[in-house]
Amino acid sequence: MKLYTKVSTSLTGSSVPLEGFLVLSMAKFDHIIEVSPEDRYAVVEAGVRLDALNDHLSKYGFFYPPDPGSSIAATVGGSISTNAGGMKAVAYGTTRNWVLGLEVVLPNGEIIKVGGKVLKRTAGYDLTSLFIGAEGTLGVITKAILKIWPLPEARGRILAYYDEIGKIGEAVSSINARGITPEMAEFMDRITMDSLTRTRGMRFPESAKYMLLVDIATTSESLQRQLSETVEILKESKPVDIHVTTDPSEMARMYEARKGSYASLLSERDKPSERVVIGDIVVPPSELPEALREIEAKIGEYGLKVALFGHVADGNIHANIYADVDDRDFMNKVERFQIELGKIAIRHEGSVSAEHGIGLEKKGLLKLELSPQVLELMKSIKKAIDPNNIMNRGKVFD
Amino acid sequence: MKLYTKVSTSLTGSSVPLEGFLVLSMAKFDHIIEVSPEDRYAVVEAGVRLDALNDHLSKYGFFYPPDPGSSIAATVGGSISTNAGGMKAVAYGTTRNWVLGLEVVLPNGEIIKVGGKVLKRTAGYDLTSLFIGAEGTLGVITKAILKIWPLPEARGRILAYYDEIGKIGEAVSSINARGITPEMAEFMDRITMDSLTRTRGMRFPESAKYMLLVDIATTSESLQRQLSETVEILKESKPVDIHVTTDPSEMARMYEARKGSYASLLSERDKPSERVVIGDIVVPPSELPEALREIEAKIGEYGLKVALFGHVADGNIHANIYADVDDRDFMNKVERFQIELGKIAIRHEGSVSAEHGIGLEKKGLLKLELSPQVLELMKSIKKAIDPNNIMNRGKVFD
Repeated sequence: MKLYTKVSTSLTGSSVPLEGFLVLSMAKFDHIIEVSPEDRYAVVEAGVRLDALNDHLSKYGFFYPPDPGSSIAATVGGSISTNAGGMKAVAYGTTRNWVLGLEVVLPNGEIIKVGGKVLKRTAGYDLTSLFIGAEGTLGVITKAILKIWPLPEARGRILAYYDEIGKIGEAVSSINARGITPEMAEFMDRITMDSLTRTRGMRFPESAKYMLLVDIATTSESLQRQLSETVEILKESKPVDIHVTTDPSEMARMYEARKGSYASLLSERDKPSERVVIGDIVVPPSELPEALREIEAKIGEYGLKVALFGHVADGNIHANIYADVDDRDFMNKVERFQIELGKIAIRHEGSVSAEHGIGLEKKGLLKLELSPQVLELMKSIKKAIDPNNIMNRGKVFD
Repeated sequence: MKLYTKVSTSLTGSSVPLEGFLVLSMAKFDHIIEVSPEDRYAVVEAGVRLDALNDHLSKYGFFYPPDPGSSIAATVGGSISTNAGGMKAVAYGTTRNWVLGLEVVLPNGEIIKVGGKVLKRTAGYDLTSLFIGAEGTLGVITKAILKIWPLPEARGRILAYYDEIGKIGEAVSSINARGITPEMAEFMDRITMDSLTRTRGMRFPESAKYMLLVDIATTSESLQRQLSETVEILKESKPVDIHVTTDPSEMARMYEARKGSYASLLSERDKPSERVVIGDIVVPPSELPEALREIEAKIGEYGLKVALFGHVADGNIHANIYADVDDRDFMNKVERFQIELGKIAIRHEGSVSAEHGIGLEKKGLLKLELSPQVLELMKSIKKAIDPNNIMNRGKVFD
């Protein structure tokens, strides 16, 4: 029995209430109600933690694929409300692909059920998707019918280390272009690796400036061949070191370390007023080499301490900015840097928010990305469903 | 170069205009604008036919998975507007999982872009999904950014024949429960088989009352082992005959025949006023044995000639009812039968519309499935986006 922490998530302030507002805790909605492998669904309450759900599903040989780094603490309801992507979205898609139906309490107090237990449905508008990623601004999700999937037969891992950030992007883009779909591909920079060495005793080659972790999930007969093929492609981008493993305990240790990267950075703050503000952009993978180089140049230009890691297979980059919240000038600089980061994403046809949502923090960035017409359309939907603006007021939109 | 027919689709009247209204033909929006295997997307105009798209993508070793039976004629825009599911939804999900972004002309004439070229995005409400399955009631889709996927390495097929309809459901449910995900599993009854024998010279075992076709798509090393495992499971439901093939031309011939089933039934009408009205329900696979038996009993009770086939892996059943549109009493009976079919779906926690949409024909059935609150919510969204009700008026809702 694992212990599921009382740690909370929400990285853009979606669940920080404005003055005079309430926060609803869904912690006691923590029941897994039904699992049907025949029908490929699980019915769960909104407060169930994602790791707890997957521990339960593993008994059936199944899993729920959306896998944010915070899965030990992240809940079903929260991850639906931000359309969580995480480590394995490249292979399985984001949360929106895995929610078949919802129970929602509307702003007027009515309880509705949308979608349901079937894998296909075209019966009116897709209200289920409308509540996914709405960050609680349209209603309270109380229950979800999630699509589940058989666990892969075999998994193997390649750790490739590079000395230049653009090579990470080139390697990922090459894998994609050759029709190889890794189950995940994660990268991290030296700041993150060093932090994991100090906090978790993880070891990395000294010559490595960047690590690329590529997981292959496939059938038992094909694992070695597919790993070899992928290694050959990764070598084309000239790694300084490369390591292949299929050892489950070694793989689990690195997987947990990567998932704990943000917590590791956070634990090493110099003083109580220091925070690690996390940027969350996404670009098409072919844009990664250029976008990563531009980000690194911008970090240098701003003179900030920024740790980079991300779910790079789908072009998702997290910039973790060390920031002192007591220093107003410094925080203004951080905000300007976040805008630069958003502009890099938009210039490369990506998005200012891959998976953390808009919350309070990115309302300005959202206006940079969306046209006024699209923003108006979203607001008209908000108004139609929540005319009194009582659900999570002040989030996503002004 | 294949010839893409001028045949149209739309099986519930979504594209039949009310008096005084216009139909927009998107036939000339037929350009494939961009394909990016590195980024796993294709940008295409709304009038591109699905088979034409897949012919093009195959040059890159990629494909667009949504595969309705009508793919030779079905367009990108039309299949998005009904959230088409088709043959392979069990493995890949429905259209909503494969649309990354859209260009849409709103009722007020504004052209908007929603979503985009990235695989992850949580930037405000998911407007892309709102237009998927909206049957043209919210705007005109002009362009789509579709997610594409590498073609599987190897495919094999099992044809299992049964003498009782419930066994089809049992076989499908068993495959799912053991964690085998077929790329497709299709069933058809003897009426359909006989029609394909007459129109296409297809041959089926004489003792067979029902056929179940199961495709396994996997790696080249694992195909034979996975086919054998699946055969063993199918044998538990006592087939009267079973046949395995990996011969591409034999597989293509049966695949085309299955896709042409509706056209085959249609071509055998006795007189010009005869139609084949197609029901389209879905239930969770574990409910299939009971639901299929109930449907067969209901056909007997009503004394109708109904050919059954469907994408049974995801619980989707099509009931093809021979109907004489000049016979008012007969058509009333067909309508009552469709309601019975919808009630069977709802009783088994399924849906009255799996993939054909609501259009004109199923507005009454939609009211049976959805609560008044959910229906009102949908109408409030329609009103917010199309206040003058000019887009496909009279479809989906009254």
